[in-house]
Amino acid sequence: MQLTIGVDIGGTNTKMGLISGEGNIVGKGEIPTSFEEGPEELVKRIKRWIDQSDQGVAELNCAGVGCAGLVDGERGVLRYSPNMPGWENVSLAEIFSRILELPAVVDNDVNAAAYSEFKMGAGREVNHFICLTMGTGLGGGIISGGNLLRGYSGFAGEIGHTVIDIDGPLCKCGQRGCLEQFVKADTIVKRAREKLNKYGESKLNNENEFTVKEIAEAAREGDKLSLEVLTETGRYLGIGLSNLVHLFNPQIIAIGGGVARAGELIFEPARVTFREHVMADILEKTRIVPAELGNDASFLGGALLAMDKFNR
Amino acid sequence: MQLTIGVDIGGTNTKMGLISGEGNIVGKGEIPTSFEEGPEELVKRIKRWIDQSDQGVAELNCAGVGCAGLVDGERGVLRYSPNMPGWENVSLAEIFSRILELPAVVDNDVNAAAYSEFKMGAGREVNHFICLTMGTGLGGGIISGGNLLRGYSGFAGEIGHTVIDIDGPLCKCGQRGCLEQFVKADTIVKRAREKLNKYGESKLNNENEFTVKEIAEAAREGDKLSLEVLTETGRYLGIGLSNLVHLFNPQIIAIGGGVARAGELIFEPARVTFREHVMADILEKTRIVPAELGNDASFLGGALLAMDKFNR
Repeated sequence: MQLTIGVDIGGTNTKMGLISGEGNIVGKGEIPTSFEEGPEELVKRIKRWIDQSDQGVAELNCAGVGCAGLVDGERGVLRYSPNMPGWENVSLAEIFSRILELPAVVDNDVNAAAYSEFKMGAGREVNHFICLTMGTGLGGGIISGGNLLRGYSGFAGEIGHTVIDIDGPLCKCGQRGCLEQFVKADTIVKRAREKLNKYGESKLNNENEFTVKEIAEAAREGDKLSLEVLTETGRYLGIGLSNLVHLFNPQIIAIGGGVARAGELIFEPARVTFREHVMADILEKTRIVPAELGNDASFLGGALLAMDKFNR
Repeated sequence: MQLTIGVDIGGTNTKMGLISGEGNIVGKGEIPTSFEEGPEELVKRIKRWIDQSDQGVAELNCAGVGCAGLVDGERGVLRYSPNMPGWENVSLAEIFSRILELPAVVDNDVNAAAYSEFKMGAGREVNHFICLTMGTGLGGGIISGGNLLRGYSGFAGEIGHTVIDIDGPLCKCGQRGCLEQFVKADTIVKRAREKLNKYGESKLNNENEFTVKEIAEAAREGDKLSLEVLTETGRYLGIGLSNLVHLFNPQIIAIGGGVARAGELIFEPARVTFREHVMADILEKTRIVPAELGNDASFLGGALLAMDKFNR
């Protein structure tokens, strides 16, 4: 059996999957990225994982990598990654190709996730598709007319850093009122804490640590403050979705990532705001749905990008 | 000589050009749109113009049309046009094709203009390009990786209706704080009038009618109030440009239309704000330039789209 190796390099962990020609995951694993040891060392450890796995290197035909950060997908170069300081202008495709002795492609991890959702997940039946990843930040991958949009230097899809409020809160990127500032996990928790200080009445407890997960759980149990916080988050997200639809006119927007696990608690208010905002009936039909592939999306997408490039 | 007919249908006037295979304009004309007579009548009058022109119908190989409004370019259907009430779900490509006896394509006028700028104007040397039209409104056409982005129903590129200020002024589309609200001609004039009422000191006179053209002339003569108004406009535009660059990562953004004739008075503050806002050095290199093809852009773009589709 011919297999493709898919890799998802994150700031903390690196995930790997062995993917069949039909896109089935026949094996997967995870190792620490330990970025301070450098990219060559990481790829060598990935090679060791492959060698130790049941399938063996001999059957592999190509490698595809999704990597956090600013990636020039055409040239396979990681320009810069805020989560892996020191990894600047790294020719990742060349390193993978040399150490694994396979043709390799590298793209941004969010693009890779969008690509697998487009091919096999929430966007598999359409040609115009956007996939958002909502967690500690907000990223996006865009497919238009069946093509993954990369832009000139691989930086397209930075949806989190589009401004929706020129007088809004300062973002670490230097702008004010970036969409990300309104919907990221930190902000949601902060908003809950502020409301707790004001009203007090809630299943949440300001003395304790809590995350979006706990807020969503409390909301599901009917906690009013938690519901309010997630509804507000959805409303801001809805404005971002409206902007995206006016620019890209997709058929489906899928949303994944940690915050998206709150599901309909955020999606439904997002849809309401979205429908209030879009300017034409035809656009209201855009479907807002959960992403389907979870944590596998990026390494699977990397593998699919590699198959599309090398297996024709 | 084989020629292509290019048409630009606007709410008031319709422009036509006869275009050589090399993209040269060998003849052009303009007639009133008189939309209330219906699309069939307009196309018959266009046919009469062609028959009367020197070249004659016999040499024409295809027709390409840019039309104001929401156009489904793949199907050649005008869905809806705010400037031509009653023209709803009109199969323009079919009507052109039947009456002119030529294969025909129809697209949005701003997309057509972007396409000619991409092929022969400000974007001719790049593959990732955005062309904005800034006048009574703000429209945009987007080329990514050499492809014109249309979206699922031809509505992509509605840059004017992306929100940059969630608490901003109400737009006729129903949203608050659309980018268009900050940079369109009306707003610029209104902003000048408000400042005149406050400060009074200016070459502009609140008793008289004036337009962006007069504001730009006064600014060029050193009028402080006019300079201030155009600088403010450029600063808002710069935020919109930053959003576009984060989403599309183009090499060049070209700006045309009536308001853009104010040129560097708006472009330079837009560049300053743009550079302050984009999050990576690599993006600061995006060039912000004037469009080059003026009023010919849409009919020329229509013709080029037709040539690309039918003359291969």
